[in-house]
Amino acid sequence: MEAHVFKTIELTGTSTKSVEEAVQSAITVAAKTVRNMSWFQIAETRGAIHDGKVTEWQVTLKIGFKIEP
Amino acid sequence: MEAHVFKTIELTGTSTKSVEEAVQSAITVAAKTVRNMSWFQIAETRGAIHDGKVTEWQVTLKIGFKIEP
Amino acid sequence: MEAHVFKTIELTGTSTKSVEEAVQSAITVAAKTVRNMSWFQIAETRGAIHDGKVTEWQVTLKIGFKIEP
Amino acid sequence: MEAHVFKTIELTGTSTKSVEEAVQSAITVAAKTVRNMSWFQIAETRGAIHDGKVTEWQVTLKIGFKIEP
Amino acid sequence: MEAHVFKTIELTGTSTKSVEEAVQSAITVAAKTVRNMSWFQIAETRGAIHDGKVTEWQVTLKIGFKIEP
Amino acid sequence: MEAHVFKTIELTGTSTKSVEEAVQSAITVAAKTVRNMSWFQIAETRGAIHDGKVTEWQVTLKIGFKIEP
Amino acid sequence: MEAHVFKTIELTGTSTKSVEEAVQSAITVAAKTVRNMSWFQIAETRGAIHDGKVTEWQVTLKIGFKIEP
Amino acid sequence: MEAHVFKTIELTGTSTKSVEEAVQSAITVAAKTVRNMSWFQIAETRGAIHDGKVTEWQVTLKIGFKIEP
Amino acid sequence: MEAHVFKTIELTGTSTKSVEEAVQSAITVAAKTVRNMSWFQIAETRGAIHDGKVTEWQVTLKIGFKIEP
Amino acid sequence: MEAHVFKTIELTGTSTKSVEEAVQSAITVAAKTVRNMSWFQIAETRGAIHDGKVTEWQVTLKIGFKIEP
Amino acid sequence: MEAHVFKTIELTGTSTKSVEEAVQSAITVAAKTVRNMSWFQIAETRGAIHDGKVTEWQVTLKIGFKIEP
Amino acid sequence: MEAHVFKTIELTGTSTKSVEEAVQSAITVAAKTVRNMSWFQIAETRGAIHDGKVTEWQVTLKIGFKIEP
Repeated sequence: MEAHVFKTIELTGTSTKSVEEAVQSAITVAAKTVRNMSWFQIAETRGAIHDGKVTEWQVTLKIGFKIEP
Repeated sequence: MEAHVFKTIELTGTSTKSVEEAVQSAITVAAKTVRNMSWFQIAETRGAIHDGKVTEWQVTLKIGFKIEP
Repeated sequence: MEAHVFKTIELTGTSTKSVEEAVQSAITVAAKTVRNMSWFQIAETRGAIHDGKVTEWQVTLKIGFKIEP
Repeated sequence: MEAHVFKTIELTGTSTKSVEEAVQSAITVAAKTVRNMSWFQIAETRGAIHDGKVTEWQVTLKIGFKIEP
Repeated sequence: MEAHVFKTIELTGTSTKSVEEAVQSAITVAAKTVRNMSWFQIAETRGAIHDGKVTEWQVTLKIGFKIEP
Repeated sequence: MEAHVFKTIELTGTSTKSVEEAVQSAITVAAKTVRNMSWFQIAETRGAIHDGKVTEWQVTLKIGFKIEP
Repeated sequence: MEAHVFKTIELTGTSTKSVEEAVQSAITVAAKTVRNMSWFQIAETRGAIHDGKVTEWQVTLKIGFKIEP
Repeated sequence: MEAHVFKTIELTGTSTKSVEEAVQSAITVAAKTVRNMSWFQIAETRGAIHDGKVTEWQVTLKIGFKIEP
Repeated sequence: MEAHVFKTIELTGTSTKSVEEAVQSAITVAAKTVRNMSWFQIAETRGAIHDGKVTEWQVTLKIGFKIEP
Repeated sequence: MEAHVFKTIELTGTSTKSVEEAVQSAITVAAKTVRNMSWFQIAETRGAIHDGKVTEWQVTLKIGFKIEP
Repeated sequence: MEAHVFKTIELTGTSTKSVEEAVQSAITVAAKTVRNMSWFQIAETRGAIHDGKVTEWQVTLKIGFKIEP
Repeated sequence: MEAHVFKTIELTGTSTKSVEEAVQSAITVAAKTVRNMSWFQIAETRGAIHDGKVTEWQVTLKIGFKIEP
C-alpha cells in the first residue's frame, strides 16, 4: 500500500532568549537522527526563573515526519 | 436592545520569523474586510520544517469584533 | 516533615512588543513580593487590537515558588 | 445530494442582568442577518466587575443554522 | 467495608425560562426513582432557537447520590 | 505583506450512511460559496437514532481555506 | 412539570469491520431494554490489533433517550 | 516597566437562588480585601440537592484584578 | 449480531487510607449488583480535609462491564 | 519484576477512501518494525480537500505494544 | 449577605514515598497559615527520576477553604 | 548550540498492588535502554477487574530524558 505514514515524536527545546529559538533548538538536535521532518505543533511553554528573571524558555513540541517505507 | 454583541472568527496567520509576526499577518488581512476588531486569543501554534529549519510559523487565533447594529 | 512544598499563582503580564516581554513583566512585578519563584507555565495568550494592529500582548501564566517553612 | 448541512458561528452576547438575557441578546442581533438558526451551546461565561459589582455578563455561544442549498 | 460509595448519572433537563429551572426539572424527574441525591455539576448548556428566540434551555448535568449498601 | 492567511469555518454535514459521506456533504455545500478549501478536521461525531437504528450521521468539522488577498 | 428530561448512558460497541457498525451494535443491544433513544455522540474510538491487522473496532458512545414521566 | 499586570484568584460563591447571585456573592466577599477587580470567568457550576430540590448553587469563578505597582 | 457491547458507569469510592482502597471500595459495592466488570479508569481524585489532615479520599472512576445479551 | 510494560507511539495513517483504511495503513507500516502491537486509539481525524472533494483522510492514532523484557 | 464563599489555592506537595504522602505534605504546610481547609482535588501528578528510580512524587492539588467573613 | 533538549516517551506500567509500583515498573523497564531519565507525569490511571477485585493497576506516564548531543 503506497499511502504515506507519519510518525510524531515529542521533544522539549530550550533557549535563554525566546520561544522561537527553543523550538529551533529541539528541531536542530532531532535533525541529527531524524529525516523528513515536516511539521511541528507547540504543546506546552514553560520556563525557569532565577532572581526574578526568566533564565530559560522550555518549549515542548510534537514533531511529525514521514516514515520511509 | 442596546447590549453589545461580538463575533469571533478563526484565522491562521503565517510568518517566516516569529509567533508575533504571524499573529499580526492574520489581523492585517482581516482588517481589509472586518471593522472594530478588539481582541484575539491564540488557539494553536504550529509550523513547517524543511531541512531541519523552521520555515514557517502558523498561528491560529480567534479574533473578536463588535457587530455594528 | 522536611518535604518541599510549592505554591502556584496565576498572573497576566502585558507588553506592547512580544510574548516573552509580557511574561517577564508579570514576573518582574511578582518579584516585588514573592521570593523563590522557580518556574512558570503559559496558560493563555491573548491580546488587544486597535486599528488593525496588535497593541498589547496579554500572557497569563502560572508561576511556582517554594514556600518557606 | 439533499443531506442537510449546518453552519456554526460564535458570538458573545452581553447583558447587565443575567446569563439568559446575554444569550438572547446575541441571538437577537444574529437574527437580523442569519436565518434558520436552530440551536446554541454556551462556550464560555465571563463578565465585567466595577466597584465590587457584576456590571456586565458576557456569554460566548456557538449558534447553529441550516444552510439553504 | 463501611466506606460510602456514590453513583453519578447524567441527565438533561429542559425549561423554557432559565438554566436554573432546567436543572431543577431534571432533578425533579430523577427524584421519582432515585433516592439520596446530594450534588450536581453542570456539564453542558445548550438550547433551541425558533424565530430568533430561545425557546428551550437544555442543561446537561451529572447528579451524584449515595448507593445504599 | 505576502504571508498566507487562512480562515477556518465550522460546518456540520449529515449522511444516512457513514462518517465519510457526512464530511463530504458538508464540503460539497461549502464549495458552492467558498474557494480554496484545503483541509478539514473532525470536531465532533453525533447522530440521530429512530427505532433502534442510526438514521443520520452528523459530523461537525472545521474547514480551512486560504483567504485571497 | 411537563418539561422533557433526557438520560445519557455510555456504551462501547464493537465490530470487526467499521466505526459505523460498532456504533450500531451498541445501539442494537441497548434497544432491547431502553426505549425512546434519540441521539448519540462518539466519545472515543479505540481498537484491537493482532498480527498487524485491526481485528476489532471499539467505539464508546453516549446515547440520549427521553425519560417517560 | 509600566506595563499592567493582573492577578487571578479562584473563588466559589454560593446562593440558594441562582447562578448570578452566587457569582455576585463571591465578588462581594472578595471586595472586602481586593481592590481593582475587573473581570471574572465561570470555571464550574455545581450545587447541593436535598429532598429532590436544589438547595444551593455553587459557582467557581476566576477573578482578575490589576496589581498596584 | 454477536459483537460484544460494554456499558460504563461512574462511581465514587471513598477511603480514609489511600487512592487504591477508595477504588476497590467502589468496585466492591458495584459487584453486589453488576456482573462482568472488567476495567476501570480514574476520572478524578478529590478528598476531604479536617484540621489539616486528609480524612477521606474520594476517587471517581468509570467502570466498564460486558452487557449480557 | 515480571509486570508487563507497554509503549505508546503516535502515527498518522492516510487513505483516499476511509477512516478505517487510514488506521490500517499506519498499523501496516508500523508492523514492519514493531512487534506485539495490541491496541490503538484515534487521537485526531483530519483530511485534505482539493476542488471540493476529500482527497485524503489523515488519522492520527496512538498505538500500544508490549515491550519485550 | 450570609452565603458561604470559598477560596481555592494551588499547591504542589512532595514525598519520596507515595501520592498520598505528597498530598498530605502540601496540606500540612498550608495548615500553618490557612484555616478552614475543607477539600482538595488532585490536578497533576509528576515526579523526579534518578538512576532509574522514582526519587520524588510531586502532586499538584487545589485546596478549598471557607473565607471567614 | 549548547541548549539542552529533552525527549518524552509514553509508557504504561502495571502492578498488582499500587499506582506507585506501576509507575516504577515502567521506569525500571525503560532504564534498560534509556539513559538520563529525569521526570515523569502521569497521563492516565486505569486497571483490570476480575471477580470484583482490582487485579492490575495500569498507569500511563510520560517520561522525559535529556538527549545526549
